Amino acid sequence: MKKVLVINSSARTLRSHSRKLTDVFIDHWKSIHTDAIISFRELGNTDVPHVNENWVAAAFKPEAMRSEEEMEALKTSNAYISELREADVIVLGAPMYNWSIPSALKAYIDQILRVNETWKFDSTNILHPYTGLLENKTLFLLLSRGAQGYEKGEYNEHLDFQSTYLKTVFNIIGISNIHVIAINGESFGPENFKKSIDTSHQNIRALIEAELV
Amino acid sequence: MKKVLVINSSARTLRSHSRKLTDVFIDHWKSIHTDAIISFRELGNTDVPHVNENWVAAAFKPEAMRSEEEMEALKTSNAYISELREADVIVLGAPMYNWSIPSALKAYIDQILRVNETWKFDSTNILHPYTGLLENKTLFLLLSRGAQGYEKGEYNEHLDFQSTYLKTVFNIIGISNIHVIAINGESFGPENFKKSIDTSHQNIRALIEAELV
Repeated sequence: MKKVLVINSSARTLRSHSRKLTDVFIDHWKSIHTDAIISFRELGNTDVPHVNENWVAAAFKPEAMRSEEEMEALKTSNAYISELREADVIVLGAPMYNWSIPSALKAYIDQILRVNETWKFDSTNILHPYTGLLENKTLFLLLSRGAQGYEKGEYNEHLDFQSTYLKTVFNIIGISNIHVIAINGESFGPENFKKSIDTSHQNIRALIEAELV
Repeated sequence: MKKVLVINSSARTLRSHSRKLTDVFIDHWKSIHTDAIISFRELGNTDVPHVNENWVAAAFKPEAMRSEEEMEALKTSNAYISELREADVIVLGAPMYNWSIPSALKAYIDQILRVNETWKFDSTNILHPYTGLLENKTLFLLLSRGAQGYEKGEYNEHLDFQSTYLKTVFNIIGISNIHVIAINGESFGPENFKKSIDTSHQNIRALIEAELV
């Protein structure tokens, strides 16, 4: 049975559109996998710590060399990474805040990208110095955006620092099986937005079924 | 006399390369403007709050409609924005963390991008809905990166979610006079890195002198 980790990063709770997407995912997943194993990581309503000086000092030296303070600075990172390693399927709900991801989600990414834990670095291979260390995982990026036109070739493509960035960092830690589903256009009228939501829900269900094959 | 606001976002203190760049800027600025007015905003060593549910609710309604809790949620944002309005010259030191900006700086950006305060939104103008509300400011982006090749046409251009993103968001709030100076390549040997540092320091001094004209 595949283990699912659901991560929510919206600052909104009830009015969040990306949380609604992760709910739709969970409902459909459970309807198919009656013995589903699902765990949760809340980012949007918690104070995800920014990495600090001790964190940086600690992460780039061998474990045996770390002071107690430095070990302490890595505690959150250790917990997040161990959850990720456990998961077979990662479902990440993320709104677009100012054309990028919420700062709480960036704080999470700064915590989970750790040399020799989730990626390796080879300074002699200048064009491809990074090797991801997480394996055999599928990531569902369930995104929401107030505006629209962010897809390839569309008029706001250059303003998408959300899906492109998330794909980039998860690729670097070894997760390349990534599905992106986004709802668009809350700021531009209810009709198109409603259509975008309906389509996204259908697509989530279809993707879950496709993964069964 | 122009007012300068210096913002530092590195989690490192003494070993920070971007802080060194803002120091070089300050020293040279002072050597020219003996009655310089310089204020500071520390981000890298403080717990910059992520926007939360009350913040989102508050920011998108008129001031008179906000509850006391919602007013409270905007306090940090108000302070940051009022500092920005005061400044003629903004000097932002920012390292690249995981190909983007540190989460503390993203938290700051989520705090300062506020509708009807730093930008206006026109939902009828679908292609250009944003108007910046900050005027007559010059921004110096003083950046550092562990790797290299992030400039236009170079092999890591697609991995630059730092300078492109910062230019995008500051443009949207009305700051378009932006100078970017970056040091590159700490992870790939001391010789090139030293050269990159020296060049960046020279460029900072030259830019300050060019601004006098």
